[in-house]
Amino acid sequence: MTRFSDRLVAAVKAKGNPVCVGLDPRFDLLPERLRRLAVRTHGRSSRAVAAAFLEFNRALIDELADLVPACKPQVAFYEEYGAEGMRAFEETVRHARDKGLLVISDAKRGDIGPTAEGYARAHLSHEEDGFAGRGFDADAVTVNPYLGADSLEPFLELGRRHGKGAFVLVRTSNPGARDLQDLDVDGRPLYERVAEMVGRLGGPPSASGFTDVGAVVGATYPDEARSLRALLPEAIFLVPGYGAQGAAAADAAAAFRDDGLGALVNSARGIVFAFREPSYARRFEEKDFAKAARAAAEDMATALNDALRGVKRAG
Amino acid sequence: MTRFSDRLVAAVKAKGNPVCVGLDPRFDLLPERLRRLAVRTHGRSSRAVAAAFLEFNRALIDELADLVPACKPQVAFYEEYGAEGMRAFEETVRHARDKGLLVISDAKRGDIGPTAEGYARAHLSHEEDGFAGRGFDADAVTVNPYLGADSLEPFLELGRRHGKGAFVLVRTSNPGARDLQDLDVDGRPLYERVAEMVGRLGGPPSASGFTDVGAVVGATYPDEARSLRALLPEAIFLVPGYGAQGAAAADAAAAFRDDGLGALVNSARGIVFAFREPSYARRFEEKDFAKAARAAAEDMATALNDALRGVKRAG
Repeated sequence: MTRFSDRLVAAVKAKGNPVCVGLDPRFDLLPERLRRLAVRTHGRSSRAVAAAFLEFNRALIDELADLVPACKPQVAFYEEYGAEGMRAFEETVRHARDKGLLVISDAKRGDIGPTAEGYARAHLSHEEDGFAGRGFDADAVTVNPYLGADSLEPFLELGRRHGKGAFVLVRTSNPGARDLQDLDVDGRPLYERVAEMVGRLGGPPSASGFTDVGAVVGATYPDEARSLRALLPEAIFLVPGYGAQGAAAADAAAAFRDDGLGALVNSARGIVFAFREPSYARRFEEKDFAKAARAAAEDMATALNDALRGVKRAG
Repeated sequence: MTRFSDRLVAAVKAKGNPVCVGLDPRFDLLPERLRRLAVRTHGRSSRAVAAAFLEFNRALIDELADLVPACKPQVAFYEEYGAEGMRAFEETVRHARDKGLLVISDAKRGDIGPTAEGYARAHLSHEEDGFAGRGFDADAVTVNPYLGADSLEPFLELGRRHGKGAFVLVRTSNPGARDLQDLDVDGRPLYERVAEMVGRLGGPPSASGFTDVGAVVGATYPDEARSLRALLPEAIFLVPGYGAQGAAAADAAAAFRDDGLGALVNSARGIVFAFREPSYARRFEEKDFAKAARAAAEDMATALNDALRGVKRAG
């Protein structure tokens, strides 16, 4: 079985870019045609929203699958619509994997012992003990470290068995991240302690030189990303905050190694709702929202690759 | 609209005990009759598990609703079975609230800005913007503080609007809790910093004298519970770890105020799977699992109330 890190690095090399598409649908931002059709069929119900999410995501996945290595659906936007929303999440993950995309379930789960095992099975497996249809079967999941190493171990254990991965929240991209993550512990910020935990949990690297335990490192703080990169040379960084949250390609580049590998950069709104941005709206009609997303993803790939060539020259 | 803390304190007084029943079903521990019936109807599928969970929970809720003030379904055990599992979670919450129980969704969610808003709507609301069937509509939700105060605010904001509450993870009951929560920050453990954040976010107390922002404080560390109690006199503590995780009534009593109020003590396996424990199995057949759960909940209520009288005498 191929390890997650090997699969991810191979996909980044094959597609020639480290773009991760955030599949974060918001009903009121969907193309009007999708919204109208869903409400006409299902009424103003969570089922209508779920149907519209799934149609939107399928079109995006079909358009983007040959271009980018990975996608990251944010579970909250589906969970918001209860069990119907989670059905749309489940089918989104399945469709993306069927089309050859790596899927990172952005769940930020964290719980103790047997409970964490439940979450690990939910996000990283599909069929266990002969129960068909169990779990979402993503390639990797994001996890929260506050409960300690034993709360992360069930995700890593299942990952080792199924060739899956986990990304541990280390330094997030929101202003409140400083409340706990930056607190001074023996002269260093708390998030560096978390980074050390990630390094310990990662164990020996795979053939690609990376481990299957990655780190979530916000793109809005490039200095932190650089120091964490040095601390965790074998961890893959998942970098949110590109575009809509204000970080640019040069900021995101700080999360990469000198060889241009080691990170996935996520953009959600900037890609999936590109058809709403003036620069793409001029070129694409609303019904061509997936083509607008492709153009935005291509522009992001170009910007990141340009920034990474800068890193390599400087290195 | 009545605030969450007022509703909770009133329920504890009305029922005369602070027992919270952990609705944490595990398929392989369910009564054999329920398992056989579900598999015969739905095959070995996530649908069979969801059906069995719901029947198990409904029987427990019907038997326990007049005895205890609250229940706490652990989301992981439902999410483990994908969208079907989440349907069982959704209907469990609805049935428990219909029967007059307060429901704490043990989700331990935490995410940034608009994403946290999604989780808040998922767990604390039902119908927004005219979308029927949206969200699980629990009375309170557990949340993870690692992303900082701005990641918790959306839960509190929605709670203020709907009379709902949130319990912030402060000191958990697992061995790994020490990895981050006990780290020394300026001479005090990190979890005390989190406790201060809980105090700030709680704002002014309700008529009952408590705020709507509580704290999760493991029963396995009574010394920590005592120091946190002193630090947060107006916060309601949600105390897991009773029974199966090794903590006894005297340990849990450390989380209460001298007036015997201020905490809910959760037990899952010790109540819902009481029919599997020799002391109850002698008195109840497997088909009477709900009656065994009632006997176990009554024993726990008695033990807690005895321990709390001890606290008051000592106080």
